[in-house]
Amino acid sequence: MQTYPGYTRKANYYETDQMGIIHHSNYIRWFEEARVAFLDFLNLSYQTIEQAGIIVPVLEVTSKYKEMVRFGETVRIDLFIEKYTGTRLDFRYEIYNHENQLVTLGESKHCFLSKENNRLISLKKSHPDFHRVFQDYADKNSKK
Amino acid sequence: MQTYPGYTRKANYYETDQMGIIHHSNYIRWFEEARVAFLDFLNLSYQTIEQAGIIVPVLEVTSKYKEMVRFGETVRIDLFIEKYTGTRLDFRYEIYNHENQLVTLGESKHCFLSKENNRLISLKKSHPDFHRVFQDYADKNSKK
Amino acid sequence: MQTYPGYTRKANYYETDQMGIIHHSNYIRWFEEARVAFLDFLNLSYQTIEQAGIIVPVLEVTSKYKEMVRFGETVRIDLFIEKYTGTRLDFRYEIYNHENQLVTLGESKHCFLSKENNRLISLKKSHPDFHRVFQDYADKNSKK
Amino acid sequence: MQTYPGYTRKANYYETDQMGIIHHSNYIRWFEEARVAFLDFLNLSYQTIEQAGIIVPVLEVTSKYKEMVRFGETVRIDLFIEKYTGTRLDFRYEIYNHENQLVTLGESKHCFLSKENNRLISLKKSHPDFHRVFQDYADKNSKK
Repeated sequence: MQTYPGYTRKANYYETDQMGIIHHSNYIRWFEEARVAFLDFLNLSYQTIEQAGIIVPVLEVTSKYKEMVRFGETVRIDLFIEKYTGTRLDFRYEIYNHENQLVTLGESKHCFLSKENNRLISLKKSHPDFHRVFQDYADKNSKK
Repeated sequence: MQTYPGYTRKANYYETDQMGIIHHSNYIRWFEEARVAFLDFLNLSYQTIEQAGIIVPVLEVTSKYKEMVRFGETVRIDLFIEKYTGTRLDFRYEIYNHENQLVTLGESKHCFLSKENNRLISLKKSHPDFHRVFQDYADKNSKK
Repeated sequence: MQTYPGYTRKANYYETDQMGIIHHSNYIRWFEEARVAFLDFLNLSYQTIEQAGIIVPVLEVTSKYKEMVRFGETVRIDLFIEKYTGTRLDFRYEIYNHENQLVTLGESKHCFLSKENNRLISLKKSHPDFHRVFQDYADKNSKK
Repeated sequence: MQTYPGYTRKANYYETDQMGIIHHSNYIRWFEEARVAFLDFLNLSYQTIEQAGIIVPVLEVTSKYKEMVRFGETVRIDLFIEKYTGTRLDFRYEIYNHENQLVTLGESKHCFLSKENNRLISLKKSHPDFHRVFQDYADKNSKK
């Protein structure tokens, strides 16, 4: 399985604030965009997961701001599976600007819940096909 | 029935853009906040309407920007029922700053849809109790 | 001068609301994304305009919602210069989904202001090079 | 000096996502709202600080989600100075729902920068009056 090449996007005008930079809250949304694109890359889209009756809430998110990003800049968001246990899924993010300078570091922690009863799901038990996709990617892509 | 006294809120930092003013898209959200507060004022909350299986989508929205609003300014959003027919509900909005200067004008047009089948609902027929609330307010509060 | 081919993007998860569709306020932001991409297409980027001391505020915006858009859908935003006078610039937008169905119609009206004193600028007089770009595009691309 | 009584606000419709809950990115914005209200409470508004040529960027933010918040719920955001050194200012946040249940925990780390040259500022040296406000509050309000 190939390594995810990262998700690229441009900083929007409406994402700036009066400091003249991208408002810090937007990076949390960029992490989500990268996550969604990563799941597409795995051929296990968020839509597929939701249609299987599973929601993947965010339990925790962290963002560390190294450098400012400005309107119009193109950034690349690299994403790594930090931990996958079958019941928990943790991501790490690195955002780079067009000069390949690390501008933001992030983490997000997730679990799997049944849409029906909001209970924790073990993907390993309930959806072994989904489980294998995450497990395979995690195995074959050692952390940077 | 009393006239709605308007909805008051402060402009947030994250709502600014690099022009140093509130980004124009946020006013559309402020209209919604005023609408939700107006429904609470009528004792017919949006939650009540949704729990009755009705959704109230926006068909059209317009915003005209007269004056800029800046971070930290307190604004009052006045809301008027422009038209109510039992199947359609149109609002008009006027946003005033702390000097009572008109800063923004808006309009939004809505219908009522069944959550179940996404079909148009006549509130007049299906929910006469809800209908009476809107009709009464519209009748007793002539347009400015 | 070629006709702008439209701006393509995907609907993000964070742009949905509890109705299960893209929240109506986000289309106003998508119009802006299309505008910014259009200026890049003209080789007259928003950054270039701002660096010349000009801001291009939104005077009015309208959005008409025909069909819902859902998370993950790819949309194309076509943009037309509706009016250009040297002092005023009005755009029209048409958003199409992946089935080429018209989902949203929009308009935005703009003027040019001096960053320094917030006064109206005639691009025709003050920045004839910028003026020519808009005039040429408007001339060569008659309205649909 | 009195203890900050917390910042109260309602969850907006446009802050929900298709999971039917408040999207996780919005809490980062609520932390900012609480911060701005806290500075007002200290009579040292963000505007005052910015007008003195100081910006207070976010270096790091964390949010831990314990319970979901839904549209229309009123939440109270308690804020604590976790660390204040004259050059660094760290906050901790606790968000409670109307049943006084802890729903979200957060942290944000900040520094002070000169608007002019983007260099780090020691508030203690450059603005002893501002310094005293933060120092006094931190001293008199021991951590929970």
